[in-house]
Amino acid sequence: MPTYPHLPESIRSLSEALSSLPSLGPRQSLRLAFYLSQRDPENLKRLSQDLINVGELKTCGQCFFIHEDKNQVLCPICRDPGRNNKQIAFIEKETELLALEQTAQYRGRYLLLGPLEKNGLLNDLQRSRMQTLKKFIVQELGSSADEILIALSPTRYGDHYADIIKKEFSTLAKRVTRLGRGLPRGGEIEFADDETLGASLEGRN
Amino acid sequence: MPTYPHLPESIRSLSEALSSLPSLGPRQSLRLAFYLSQRDPENLKRLSQDLINVGELKTCGQCFFIHEDKNQVLCPICRDPGRNNKQIAFIEKETELLALEQTAQYRGRYLLLGPLEKNGLLNDLQRSRMQTLKKFIVQELGSSADEILIALSPTRYGDHYADIIKKEFSTLAKRVTRLGRGLPRGGEIEFADDETLGASLEGRN
Repeated sequence: MPTYPHLPESIRSLSEALSSLPSLGPRQSLRLAFYLSQRDPENLKRLSQDLINVGELKTCGQCFFIHEDKNQVLCPICRDPGRNNKQIAFIEKETELLALEQTAQYRGRYLLLGPLEKNGLLNDLQRSRMQTLKKFIVQELGSSADEILIALSPTRYGDHYADIIKKEFSTLAKRVTRLGRGLPRGGEIEFADDETLGASLEGRN
Repeated sequence: MPTYPHLPESIRSLSEALSSLPSLGPRQSLRLAFYLSQRDPENLKRLSQDLINVGELKTCGQCFFIHEDKNQVLCPICRDPGRNNKQIAFIEKETELLALEQTAQYRGRYLLLGPLEKNGLLNDLQRSRMQTLKKFIVQELGSSADEILIALSPTRYGDHYADIIKKEFSTLAKRVTRLGRGLPRGGEIEFADDETLGASLEGRN
């Protein structure tokens, strides 16, 4: 950020903190900081309490999604006896878990990988999470899960990481699948790319 | 926001608070809330303190820009005896004041109007700020400022509000001006619109 004369220190500090967040640029952050300074102090207190609260969420020891119950190691999905813990979906982001849950069509559990790296390699966190899952499959599922569903987006990165996961888990699951590809609802055939159209032909039903 | 099952309440609350900010959409806010939940709690505490701090900034009683000195009614610009208080620039946003200050070419003072309304009317805050300035001109400047510089962006809205301000202050200032129009640095003549090119001809030097 340029060193503006007359920029209050607290605005500078807030604006820099905001611009360290993904998808927020420095100009937008500065405008937001000024905007926030005009908010009612009670409103700002609530927002700042919200921030403290999300920092206190727990991470599930099994799927690594976050949850609120401080007395529980596992999240409500992993604790739910009505769900199939032999079916494990790999996801990249929390918001993707929410989207899959909203379909109400998936009744297995998850493994949250966290953001995929641009370098095409698994980071330490991802390796350790996959180790936790391997241990679970060996110890709790007799070394064989029913299904590993690789629910990564069908992009170049997603494909690349799907290959890595497939190699790591092919001996630990009866089948390793990916989300089906085809025409999206409302998609027009004439504008579909070859790969999508090809997939929709293969998957016709 | 859709009612996601398994969405922790504190993430929902933070995400809604973020999406109430200008320029942040609901999806982006949800992603940001999840991202923030993975931040180090110390980092979140600093950010939440930053929020409290900007809420405690003072508004200058004369130009309505914010400042940090709790013991002062006026901001450093309005208190500066080296600045010409008979020259007053109308601005819409705090960031525009910073941009003008960075040129180091303006040595007058300001009147911060706050966001212009889409309905083309002055809101109560803007009316009251303009009243404060009128009173200042009458009482401190013998009913005549040297210059009112209307530093609003050269857009349809800016033009409209400039007309309103001009009417209100034409009898209270020796001259009412606007920022000059013309080709921006690096702008190419063949792509300039007629109005800009016309203005650059009129303002040739």
